[in-house]
Amino acid sequence: MTFFRSRWVKAPPGAEELDPAELAPGFRAAGVACGLKDGGVTDLGLLACEAEKAGSALLLTRNAAAAAPVRVCREECDHGGIRAAVVNSGTANAAVGERGYRDALAMREAAAEALGMDARLVAVAETGRIGVPLAMDSVRRGVAEAAGALSERGAGDFARAIMTTDRAPKGCTVRSGGITISAQAKGAGMIEPGFATMLCFIQTDARIPQPDAALRLAVAGSFERITVDGQMSTNDTVLLQATGSSGRGLPEGLLDAVLLQLALEVVADGEGATRVGRIEVSGAASRDEAERVARAIANSPLVKAALYGRDPNWGRIAQAAGMALAGEELEELGPDAIEAGEMGSESPEAEIALRLARGEGRAHVCFSDLTHAYVELNSEYTT
Amino acid sequence: MTFFRSRWVKAPPGAEELDPAELAPGFRAAGVACGLKDGGVTDLGLLACEAEKAGSALLLTRNAAAAAPVRVCREECDHGGIRAAVVNSGTANAAVGERGYRDALAMREAAAEALGMDARLVAVAETGRIGVPLAMDSVRRGVAEAAGALSERGAGDFARAIMTTDRAPKGCTVRSGGITISAQAKGAGMIEPGFATMLCFIQTDARIPQPDAALRLAVAGSFERITVDGQMSTNDTVLLQATGSSGRGLPEGLLDAVLLQLALEVVADGEGATRVGRIEVSGAASRDEAERVARAIANSPLVKAALYGRDPNWGRIAQAAGMALAGEELEELGPDAIEAGEMGSESPEAEIALRLARGEGRAHVCFSDLTHAYVELNSEYTT
Repeated sequence: MTFFRSRWVKAPPGAEELDPAELAPGFRAAGVACGLKDGGVTDLGLLACEAEKAGSALLLTRNAAAAAPVRVCREECDHGGIRAAVVNSGTANAAVGERGYRDALAMREAAAEALGMDARLVAVAETGRIGVPLAMDSVRRGVAEAAGALSERGAGDFARAIMTTDRAPKGCTVRSGGITISAQAKGAGMIEPGFATMLCFIQTDARIPQPDAALRLAVAGSFERITVDGQMSTNDTVLLQATGSSGRGLPEGLLDAVLLQLALEVVADGEGATRVGRIEVSGAASRDEAERVARAIANSPLVKAALYGRDPNWGRIAQAAGMALAGEELEELGPDAIEAGEMGSESPEAEIALRLARGEGRAHVCFSDLTHAYVELNSEYTT
Repeated sequence: MTFFRSRWVKAPPGAEELDPAELAPGFRAAGVACGLKDGGVTDLGLLACEAEKAGSALLLTRNAAAAAPVRVCREECDHGGIRAAVVNSGTANAAVGERGYRDALAMREAAAEALGMDARLVAVAETGRIGVPLAMDSVRRGVAEAAGALSERGAGDFARAIMTTDRAPKGCTVRSGGITISAQAKGAGMIEPGFATMLCFIQTDARIPQPDAALRLAVAGSFERITVDGQMSTNDTVLLQATGSSGRGLPEGLLDAVLLQLALEVVADGEGATRVGRIEVSGAASRDEAERVARAIANSPLVKAALYGRDPNWGRIAQAAGMALAGEELEELGPDAIEAGEMGSESPEAEIALRLARGEGRAHVCFSDLTHAYVELNSEYTT
């Protein structure tokens, strides 16, 4: 079985999947339980690059209520030269006042010291409950333990340590064209635009001359194409690190395929999700209009509940499209313009197409269904 | 008990509630079962004004996929002089192709003939399933029967005949300052902006010199302030008719109070709803910004599920506000800025306040909770 499981991911020819515990050459990682979560669940991850000069790119949420670690990364990191990352999955360290920023800095400082690195080269990410202050003693203990446990085969532990309500760890290691990419992600709730709400870490020994451009492009085709509940999180972070030690460039499409597969796993594992829909809007007046219509459909609770109920309810797709185009002239949208048959099937991935007759604009969005489990999870979760 | 039940409605002093079956003087109505719905449920309503010259105002959905009856009303009605309305609650007559428009015209024509009125003075409204053609034989039979059953005490039957998934009919008759207002509404799913998704009919013997302005103002403070699922429907219609036969004007605040009470009943009876939240945003940079933030909070499935779960989860309010203000500078939003305690109470109406420190902009939105019953209703409903 290859890692590229979704019908919507085009695996580059010759890509070979390795054990997802394995990191790209030059990287080590660990995941430990430091007590931020109950029950000895792993909750702190550490990731480090051995190369003194690695290229990197860092993308952060645009949510105006961004969490402290995001602000630390935004303001006090050398985005192009990041060597390490420290992550906790117990608290988001968001909305806790001045203290949050100090704690995020201190968490990063602890990691920088343990690794003997300049703190500006260490990224910090946090996820979990909002409004709860960080237990710094636990964090310091966890960082020390993780630094001692770093391993070239630590990607699996790291992926588990960054999970929140995810049902399974998400990660892969793929080899192609003489280079290796390893990547780990977490998702679950608050998944939507900007790029989707989640954490994702990508390591490679490929040579990437402009990591920021490469990452933005791959994210635009993957994490920016998904939504679980239309909620942009306070903590989204994507980090790409590339050592260049292989001396080779990235094979075309490989980074895109890895990120798209992880993004689709994030949607499929969205809170309470049982199915993934993919709405493709064509014939819009522009790319932006197609995007707006696709998102209105992907985020409509009526469409999402119909996907859950295996109801090929094209009327709700017409309604959501009409809402996105409120006030405009629109041809009537009947079954001729809408293919929603797969919504009524048992397929875990359902394709839906909406053809407008307004121009050449085209866009797609992948989304999860709205289920009883979503309501369960989010009405019982406590601040 | 007075009609003005919600804590958020300010009843004008001296307003007296009459039997909601009673229409304002000069109006008659009926509701019959014509077979569009199974089981002999009433599904066709007729409303008529005896005065040859009544003033009226008609507000229609801005959804670009508007249903045929909305397009008929938009294009072929004298909005200022409407004397009658015919409504069916079996099919929305939306997204059925050319045929829909012809059927809506024919339904209206049948009513105009039965009432001996110019068709341009008859409004037509439809609600129910999208994509199903209208059974015209049933409609014609229903219209004839309803025309024979018109009664000054027919408001209750009319209110029942326009229901879809509503749990109860919504209507009231109120007397104040020598005039009477009667009003009937239906809501349930697809409730949100423009003005909210629903049908509402208001009759009065007050003299209203500018019915359009009066109606827009009252709707701006009521149906435009509510959301169930953020979905603008294809069929929203609000009709105000005023005969002026009392010789008196509208007492200040009466129309607003009637529409606000009905709007809140629509939210409280939103699909699967168990509670109503009211988010008030203050201190925004502008009125529009406050509105944007309030709507992001009111439509967040995370906030709505927390309201259902009696979880005073202010972190989700901060997150939704930050998403609405993506990319902007924002002070940190902690418990100091957010009052969400009533979300954790057993009160059926929960007030939430968010105080920004950006300016003087202020807005509020009332919303229903996201419940298991919502998912149930919308995953089992079939096109």
